[in-house]
Amino acid sequence: MTKIGIVGLGSMGFGMACSLVRAGLETWGHDVNPDAVTGFQAEGGQPGTLHDAVPSLDVLVVVVLNAAQTRTVLCGTDGLMARMRPGAVIISCATVSPAFAREMESEAEQQDLLYLDAPISGGTVKAAEGQLTIMASGRPAAFDAARPALDAMAGQVFTLGDQAGPGSAMKSVNQMLAGIHIAAMGEALTFGMTQGISPETFLEVISRSAGTSWMLESRAPRVIAGDYEARSSVEIWPKDLGIALDIARDARFSAPLTATALQQFLAASGMGYGAEDDAAVAKVYARNAGLTLPGDDTP
Amino acid sequence: MTKIGIVGLGSMGFGMACSLVRAGLETWGHDVNPDAVTGFQAEGGQPGTLHDAVPSLDVLVVVVLNAAQTRTVLCGTDGLMARMRPGAVIISCATVSPAFAREMESEAEQQDLLYLDAPISGGTVKAAEGQLTIMASGRPAAFDAARPALDAMAGQVFTLGDQAGPGSAMKSVNQMLAGIHIAAMGEALTFGMTQGISPETFLEVISRSAGTSWMLESRAPRVIAGDYEARSSVEIWPKDLGIALDIARDARFSAPLTATALQQFLAASGMGYGAEDDAAVAKVYARNAGLTLPGDDTP
Repeated sequence: MTKIGIVGLGSMGFGMACSLVRAGLETWGHDVNPDAVTGFQAEGGQPGTLHDAVPSLDVLVVVVLNAAQTRTVLCGTDGLMARMRPGAVIISCATVSPAFAREMESEAEQQDLLYLDAPISGGTVKAAEGQLTIMASGRPAAFDAARPALDAMAGQVFTLGDQAGPGSAMKSVNQMLAGIHIAAMGEALTFGMTQGISPETFLEVISRSAGTSWMLESRAPRVIAGDYEARSSVEIWPKDLGIALDIARDARFSAPLTATALQQFLAASGMGYGAEDDAAVAKVYARNAGLTLPGDDTP
Repeated sequence: MTKIGIVGLGSMGFGMACSLVRAGLETWGHDVNPDAVTGFQAEGGQPGTLHDAVPSLDVLVVVVLNAAQTRTVLCGTDGLMARMRPGAVIISCATVSPAFAREMESEAEQQDLLYLDAPISGGTVKAAEGQLTIMASGRPAAFDAARPALDAMAGQVFTLGDQAGPGSAMKSVNQMLAGIHIAAMGEALTFGMTQGISPETFLEVISRSAGTSWMLESRAPRVIAGDYEARSSVEIWPKDLGIALDIARDARFSAPLTATALQQFLAASGMGYGAEDDAAVAKVYARNAGLTLPGDDTP
C-alpha cells in the first residue's frame, strides 16, 4: 500500500490531495493553514500529522508557491528530506528554474532519495478531477516510484528527460505563453471596446477565429462576468514570468513579449489587484483607456 | 441567376472564386496577374473580362491587399463603382480601418450601391473550401443582396452591425491577437531550444497545455518542418498590426503587446524574410540567440 504525503493544500494541492485519496492511496496532508488540513481529513485524508508519517512515506508531493518554499519544506531546519526513508521519491510541483530543480535533485540523491521535477498545468478544476498535465523529468527510478501518485493526479504525464531540469524548463515555456496570452486577451478585449465591440461579442467571434487561445477562452468569460475571484491570481505572473525572464537572461535570450506581459501584470498588482484572478490584467488596459468593464463599480 | 465579380485572385481570392463557382454562381474573376485569370477560367470562371461584365453584376467581391488597393478598384480613374448597376452590392474583404470602411460605404451609397464591410479570416485552406469566417457589418439590404456569395464563401458569417465599421474593427481585434500569438510562438519555441527542448517536443507538450493557441498549432509545425513557403506572409503583419495600432492611437488606447509584436515582424522583414511565411518571425529570435532552426542552411 503506497503511503503519500502532500505539502501544500491550496487551490491546486487540495484537489490533488483529494485525487490521491480517491485513488485509494493513504494520504497525509500538511498546510500552514490548519483549517486546510482539517478540511482534507474530512475528505478522507489520514488522521494524525504528516510530520509523524514522514519516515513511512513512499512518496512526498510538494505543491507550494515557489522555490524558496520548496527549499524550506525539503531542506530547511525542519526539512523533510532528512527524515524520509531511503528510496522514497519527492514529486516537486512548484514552478522553479531548471537550475533549482537540478540542485534539489542533487540534494535528494545525496540522501538516497529519488526526485521528480514535476511542474503541473491545468488549473484548479483539473487538479480536483485528477486530470492535471504534469511536465516531468527525472531518473527512471523516480518515475517508477512516483507512478501511483502520478496516475492519481494527472490526465497526462510528459516524460521530458532522465534528470531534473527539462520539466521545469517546459513549464517556464508554457507559462511564458500563458502569461502573454492572458495579457493579450486583456489588450484585445478592451481595444475592441474602444471600437464599440462588447466583451460578449468579442468572445463569441474570437473564440471561433484564428485569434483564439486556450487562455482567452478561459479568462475572457471571467472579465465578461466581472468575476475576479482568484482561481489563478495576478501575483502568479510576476513570479512565473520573472522566472522565465531570469532563465532567458542567463541564456542571453531576448524575450520582448514576455517582458511586456510582465509589465502589465506588475501594473495590475501595483493598482491593487494582485490577489484577484489574473483576468484582472484587463483592468490595467481599461483604466489606461478610460473604459468601464462589466461589474466595475469604481466611482 | 446571381452574377458575381471578384477582384483579387491571390492566395485567398482564388479559393473564394472557386468556391463561388462550386456553388453554381456565374463568376468573373480579375487580377493584375493575367495567369491568375486564366487559371480561374480553367476552374470554371466565366470567359471574357470582369471589366465587360461589371454592369450586369449583382455582387462584386473585392479581395485585395489593403485600403489603397480597395480604393483604386472601387473609386479610382477606372473605378468599378461608377459602372455598377444600382442596387448591386460590394463585399469588401481587405483588412482596413473602420473609418475607411465607413468612407467606402458612404461612397457606395451615393451611387445607389450597397456595401458590406466584410473582412475574412481562416487562411487559404478554408478559403478554398468555402469555409471562411467573415466578420461582416452593413445595411440589412446589403446582407440580403450578398447572401448567395456569403453562403458560398463562408462557413460562418458574423453579423456585427447595421453599417460599415464594426466588421473591420473586429478584424483588427482578431489580427492583433493572431499577430501577438504568432510572435509568442516564435519567442517560446526558441526560448525552449535554449533549455534543450526540441521544437517537436515543444509542440507536442504545449499543444496539449494551457499555453496553446490557434496560431501556435498552425505555425509551429511550419518552423519544425523548416517550411517557410508563404501561406500568410511576414509582410501581412506590419500592415495589419499597423492598422490596429493606428486605430488604437486614434482611440488613445495603449497596446504594448501589439506594438512589441509589430517590432518582431519588422525585424523579420528587415532581415529579408518579408515574403516568407509569417512563421519566419521565429528566425528573428533564433538569430538573436545564436540558435539554428530546422532547415536553416545559413552558413
